[in-house]
Amino acid sequence: MSLKFTLIHTDGGTGPRTGVLHTAHGDVPTPVFMPVGSQATVKTLTPDDLRSLGISLILCNTYHLYLRPGVEVIGKMGGLHRFMDWDGAILTDSGGYQLFSLSPLAKVTEEGVAFRSHIDGSEHFLTPEKAMEIQQELGPDIMMAFDHPPRYGDSYEEAREATARTHCWALRCQQYHRNKEQSLFGIAQGGTFADLRRESARTIADMDFPGYAVGGLSLGENKKITYEMVGETVSCFPSGKPRYLMGVGSPEDLVEAAGMGIDMFDSALPTRVARNGALFTRSGRQNIRNSRYKLREKAVDPACSCYTCRNFSAAYLHHLFRAEELLAYRLATLHNLHFIEELMADIRKSIDGGTFSAFRSDFLGGYQLTDQEARLAQKKKWLMRQESSK
Amino acid sequence: MSLKFTLIHTDGGTGPRTGVLHTAHGDVPTPVFMPVGSQATVKTLTPDDLRSLGISLILCNTYHLYLRPGVEVIGKMGGLHRFMDWDGAILTDSGGYQLFSLSPLAKVTEEGVAFRSHIDGSEHFLTPEKAMEIQQELGPDIMMAFDHPPRYGDSYEEAREATARTHCWALRCQQYHRNKEQSLFGIAQGGTFADLRRESARTIADMDFPGYAVGGLSLGENKKITYEMVGETVSCFPSGKPRYLMGVGSPEDLVEAAGMGIDMFDSALPTRVARNGALFTRSGRQNIRNSRYKLREKAVDPACSCYTCRNFSAAYLHHLFRAEELLAYRLATLHNLHFIEELMADIRKSIDGGTFSAFRSDFLGGYQLTDQEARLAQKKKWLMRQESSK
Repeated sequence: MSLKFTLIHTDGGTGPRTGVLHTAHGDVPTPVFMPVGSQATVKTLTPDDLRSLGISLILCNTYHLYLRPGVEVIGKMGGLHRFMDWDGAILTDSGGYQLFSLSPLAKVTEEGVAFRSHIDGSEHFLTPEKAMEIQQELGPDIMMAFDHPPRYGDSYEEAREATARTHCWALRCQQYHRNKEQSLFGIAQGGTFADLRRESARTIADMDFPGYAVGGLSLGENKKITYEMVGETVSCFPSGKPRYLMGVGSPEDLVEAAGMGIDMFDSALPTRVARNGALFTRSGRQNIRNSRYKLREKAVDPACSCYTCRNFSAAYLHHLFRAEELLAYRLATLHNLHFIEELMADIRKSIDGGTFSAFRSDFLGGYQLTDQEARLAQKKKWLMRQESSK
Repeated sequence: MSLKFTLIHTDGGTGPRTGVLHTAHGDVPTPVFMPVGSQATVKTLTPDDLRSLGISLILCNTYHLYLRPGVEVIGKMGGLHRFMDWDGAILTDSGGYQLFSLSPLAKVTEEGVAFRSHIDGSEHFLTPEKAMEIQQELGPDIMMAFDHPPRYGDSYEEAREATARTHCWALRCQQYHRNKEQSLFGIAQGGTFADLRRESARTIADMDFPGYAVGGLSLGENKKITYEMVGETVSCFPSGKPRYLMGVGSPEDLVEAAGMGIDMFDSALPTRVARNGALFTRSGRQNIRNSRYKLREKAVDPACSCYTCRNFSAAYLHHLFRAEELLAYRLATLHNLHFIEELMADIRKSIDGGTFSAFRSDFLGGYQLTDQEARLAQKKKWLMRQESSK
């Protein structure tokens, strides 16, 4: 069956909303956060772990799987679901974003992108048609159109060109799309330019996809501008279709963007920072390696009901991280994904109950950025200024 | 409660036998293999994983835990059981073996051993009394006397001296032993010299410990000599007490040594080789990285009922190992420990049923050493010859 989307609570415009994505692999309540399983595994976790966390939809990376183990392997194994033993829903990206971020020497033409594998240096050529073929072989419930995301700091002209190419490629993807069991989403680009964002969103919306993504905004850089771009894009998307903000997954961004009418998110951030020892709590990220946890008998977050916090002291987690024990990474990943799942459930509940605005203020008021995050944000701001003054 | 040991099936001598170790943290059927949790975690696994594997007794390393996180941390957290959330039984070694193998510059006197931490180079001094204090703080069900294992290749005189020191230290440990809830086992040494082995076993047996270990034999080197030493030692141990062969855990060695009346084993081998991609099957170790698994839809061992083999193809495991995904190490560890648990259960069943000898022939006949293992055995033999010709 192809995808159906039902809205439950909506103002019909760009306010926060709840809904359900009906897929052949189960229903997915929205707004939803998709954990990232780049290489056909959400790092450190089994499918049972994902199920026990209540996760219903994950993202896998076409770029990574195309290079390793290769589509012929996953195809022969009966597709991604069977290969990784995951009976929930799967979305695959198109490879575009990874390709440009992991292969700096990628060469773009109208036809497609020539690049070298970051694993073994081998040469490859990806086109919209090839990206569709690969995704059809992988067999996800939702696939994404092959796009050319402008880079942060690109000039207006550069962004305009990449965006126009993205539109052309979206059309080619749509025309090449064979298996109607799989739903193909379009991606709007436009860089950091409001008029390009609106034009791109309208162009992609006109192609009538079953879902629409806001691409090229990782929200890592200048949050003010990126939220503005999200707003411009979403305002031009039809309200009856799911809206997906790609690459976003920090707790504060999930709350903010859900408030702007976004239905779907993905990001490797919650699992990646977990493996670095940064654990989410409602008062911000905690660095479990910090020596203040050395003797703490309580859980990292005593109010948390995740497997890790129910069973282990902060002192034990601290020890596992200091000793570089592999169990550390799994326990921290379970915690962070549980936190995000709970956060999404709270977001949905507050939208349905008409109390989202209060929830948002409350959450953002209590959630402190760490010193490190603040420093990082400062540094990025500075880099942005350098870039723009060039 | 202190340890009780009940023999179920025994010939009263040095033949294979079954029994039960009754501990304050549950009953342990013997012969038993103890997975190693050096740093208060069996690498990659949670206590729930251990329970689901049917594991009832694990080993933790005093040397590692003394250095990190330190006994004051584990003491404050209420001991090892609470610290790592493991309600099964725990045995801690004394630190002697690790100390000599990980700190090559360790300096031995009659008083104790001066050494530097392999983590930060800090200086430490361990004595029999200190080893007892540390283990009492860690709070295992079974603790081991502090010993001085002769090294492979030591001369008769060197082995005699280390063995005599081991006896002296065993007495000091026994005298210092306070908490009678914890059972202290003695360790016999003797190097590769039959008369020293017998003398050591008798001397330690005369001290009347609740259990006895054969130390200094990892069975990695010359198997013929080491089995001979096991035989000499066991023949001098009393039959009513548990016998523990330290550092042994390859499938073929477990079968052989169980046949010699050994009740307990420990080794990091099954979990370590798992993380290197070597999976146990009844026909020998399989290297899952081998490209012959790239497209194999079946499990690594289709007859195996472990979590990994029930849920994943060999092709998926192969991919996880090639992609260096953390999940690989957990899935392989689950498989190897399941294999060892099943093997121990089969050993016990065959002993109880009077068919051990047939089981042994059958198992060893089907179990092939890999080319790599054969090469390694060859190389070790050669090194031994070089050593002995010096």
